[in-house]
Amino acid sequence: MIERAQNEGNVMTELSRRTMLSGVAAAALAPAIMSGLADAATPRAGKQAPGFYRYKVGDIEVTVVTDGANTFKFNDDHVSNKNRGEINAPLITAYYQPDLLTTPYNPIVVNTGGKLIVFDTGTSETAYESTKGNTGQFQLNLKAAGIDRSAVDTVVISHFHGDHINGLLTPDNKRAFPNAEILVPATEWKYFMDDGEMSRAPKGRMETVFKNLRRVFDVLERKVTQYESGKEIAPGVTSVATPGHTPGHQSHIIASGNSKVFVQGDVTHVPWLFARNPDWHAFYDQDGKLAEETRRKVYDMLVAEKMPVQGFHYPFPALAYVERAGNGYREVPVPWNPVL
Amino acid sequence: MIERAQNEGNVMTELSRRTMLSGVAAAALAPAIMSGLADAATPRAGKQAPGFYRYKVGDIEVTVVTDGANTFKFNDDHVSNKNRGEINAPLITAYYQPDLLTTPYNPIVVNTGGKLIVFDTGTSETAYESTKGNTGQFQLNLKAAGIDRSAVDTVVISHFHGDHINGLLTPDNKRAFPNAEILVPATEWKYFMDDGEMSRAPKGRMETVFKNLRRVFDVLERKVTQYESGKEIAPGVTSVATPGHTPGHQSHIIASGNSKVFVQGDVTHVPWLFARNPDWHAFYDQDGKLAEETRRKVYDMLVAEKMPVQGFHYPFPALAYVERAGNGYREVPVPWNPVL
Repeated sequence: MIERAQNEGNVMTELSRRTMLSGVAAAALAPAIMSGLADAATPRAGKQAPGFYRYKVGDIEVTVVTDGANTFKFNDDHVSNKNRGEINAPLITAYYQPDLLTTPYNPIVVNTGGKLIVFDTGTSETAYESTKGNTGQFQLNLKAAGIDRSAVDTVVISHFHGDHINGLLTPDNKRAFPNAEILVPATEWKYFMDDGEMSRAPKGRMETVFKNLRRVFDVLERKVTQYESGKEIAPGVTSVATPGHTPGHQSHIIASGNSKVFVQGDVTHVPWLFARNPDWHAFYDQDGKLAEETRRKVYDMLVAEKMPVQGFHYPFPALAYVERAGNGYREVPVPWNPVL
Repeated sequence: MIERAQNEGNVMTELSRRTMLSGVAAAALAPAIMSGLADAATPRAGKQAPGFYRYKVGDIEVTVVTDGANTFKFNDDHVSNKNRGEINAPLITAYYQPDLLTTPYNPIVVNTGGKLIVFDTGTSETAYESTKGNTGQFQLNLKAAGIDRSAVDTVVISHFHGDHINGLLTPDNKRAFPNAEILVPATEWKYFMDDGEMSRAPKGRMETVFKNLRRVFDVLERKVTQYESGKEIAPGVTSVATPGHTPGHQSHIIASGNSKVFVQGDVTHVPWLFARNPDWHAFYDQDGKLAEETRRKVYDMLVAEKMPVQGFHYPFPALAYVERAGNGYREVPVPWNPVL
């Protein structure tokens, strides 16, 4: 039932809890309004808008191109130093369902004017099939953004986990970016291509990482260019060693004019868990302690510099400022700019 | 200069302030990487992605279609009970420039399966010219979303300010939605169409509002359907009186199955100022005290119900949860869903 009250001359519908719960069902139809429109109904569109978004860093044009998002039930050992209840608390705070982790994947494309550079490649078109379109959208959204995969000059890889490198290949095991030089972190290459390291790695998840990256890079005949930390690897793009998640994990600072953005890769996974709680050690952080150290160092710098972060596992368009909150950090999404 | 330190066996680029400020310019190019790619450069795209986004409320499909955003220098009387310095503080906190107000405009389109309904119409295609494309994008983005303006069955107006009604007309003074019934709040119509009220209104801003709405509705030959508060004005859509911003200002609850969203109109203007500070009285709140009362009532309900709000002046896609923060509220954007 909708209650009414006179309020300074206005008819006011009271926003009581009861009204909110019962109002819709109980409200009477207004017959004058509902009549006289017997046209055929327009079908629902039934699909999402293409997932790309542009912004400028000085003269450099960045296009965030989403690969989609997936939702998983998490295992009890997902975060080694936290139990299920402790993980569910911030999920619920962030308006997510408990026991479920939603993971977005957001590669970017950088046009420096001279070079067209892809940063990380997403889960692959093969994953598009296996996840029923939830992930593996990168090539579709690239196309929607008007970017020709064969025009890509360079692919920069942050680290060797599957959701960052699998998109280097097409479903028929060809190069997904036929004309691109593939840049990989030298430290990452040295560690993961060492068959001794592979033989000493724990079976299960870690063994899978070693085998998967060999699968991918063997198709590329291991023809990659290794890059060092702290170098300008492309005009305006500098690599920054951010180890812990993997031994050779790299982030990248894109800078032009007075503008900068920190492309973090996996310094944090989803921010509502791991920026908020930098001391949580998820299983995909190979060295949990070092990953935590790197996280705090990077995020303290982002706060001090007011530098925006481009987060691979942030929700699209995955660009945010960060500020201190509690024992960690809170992201403040950069508002969508409707013009470039 | 990039400083290096050994860190648990990894070469670590130190993220010192000095490094951040000087690192990019000083870093040496990696010659092996920069050579051998002499292809023609891909031109920058130079334009933003189309601004539309879809989500479901039960069986109902909502498409947020942005009209753009504009940035204004604000006057000293912008907020009657706050001075320039007090307004600038939360702007800076929210990573905006001081002295400048960025205002996004976000109409929505609702497909109930039976009806295609536009909620508020934006600043108009005429404004697209005068603002050089910053605003007035609604029809362009509608088209990008595959929505035919002539298929729109109903336009629901929340209140009579220009940025909500001007888009009812084309630049050549035709109906922008040729086949749509126009629904307007009965209280709003009664108040603003009263020539006595117009004659008593203060000159300047208020007089402009009265004159502008006559300009618009006279083209429509004043053929509108008035709707009451607390009624189901379309399947799943209930009007809620939220006065103060204007005397007849209406919000709308869209509900289907277990899902609800609160389409707030201008219960708050931009959230980083007026959700954060519900006691601020901006000049466009016709009755500042009542607007504040309505704001608190609505936002307390949104917090209690964990009901998302669709905010006309929130940044695109303008859908957020709200929580208490300080003396007011903070919005938590609903994460972009890459599938519908």
